[in-house]
Amino acid sequence: MTHPSILDSIAFDAQGLVPAIAQQHDTGEVLMLAWMNREAVAETLATGRVCYYSRSRGALWRKGETSGQVQRLIELRLDCDGDALLLLLDQPGVACHTGRRDCFFRAPGPGGWREIADVKISPEVLYGQP
Amino acid sequence: MTHPSILDSIAFDAQGLVPAIAQQHDTGEVLMLAWMNREAVAETLATGRVCYYSRSRGALWRKGETSGQVQRLIELRLDCDGDALLLLLDQPGVACHTGRRDCFFRAPGPGGWREIADVKISPEVLYGQP
Repeated sequence: MTHPSILDSIAFDAQGLVPAIAQQHDTGEVLMLAWMNREAVAETLATGRVCYYSRSRGALWRKGETSGQVQRLIELRLDCDGDALLLLLDQPGVACHTGRRDCFFRAPGPGGWREIADVKISPEVLYGQP
Repeated sequence: MTHPSILDSIAFDAQGLVPAIAQQHDTGEVLMLAWMNREAVAETLATGRVCYYSRSRGALWRKGETSGQVQRLIELRLDCDGDALLLLLDQPGVACHTGRRDCFFRAPGPGGWREIADVKISPEVLYGQP
């Protein structure tokens, strides 16, 4: 049972959202940044399965519901200002919808952004053939 | 010289901002989450010293300008959607204005949030006596 003050202490923004950083708990890899609303935080704490809020779909997003790439929460952390979350979690497989381990696979190069990580699982496998 | 497409590929939000995760490059510690505007990204890439945008002050925030706790950029990363940045950096000392190593020092406990990290440098030392 989540203590009520846990949710009440989070400073959700004007859209009712808070940014959440997903970090692999044992390796320290920063996998992705997504957003949560109050309901997503509550569900994640209650179930241990990470649930975000999809701004594009305007709905709760249970990570892995279509790709199978589920995230299991190890520990939630709140920052000093209460307006950012850090999720220590276990992510087998890939976090990124492109099939890469993490979403931060672009770094500056002399000609613009260059890709620095390979696709591990093709999106066709992750999401099925169109 | 930063290639023009580097800045043009970042999807700044309606306020002209993008969230930036600060990660210690060698230990993997997630230190803080802050915000950057186009000018802050450009300055950070040009100087190698991390510059954010302070939403509370409405101005560029050269990390460490009052506390001395400067961050040196190792590498910038952009995520798949272009709307989040990961800063691999070197942060000696402390990142948090509370004097803790990182800002994510609260975790859920049975009675609400509990503090899980100690103050390393007192705010009085960081910011001077009031």
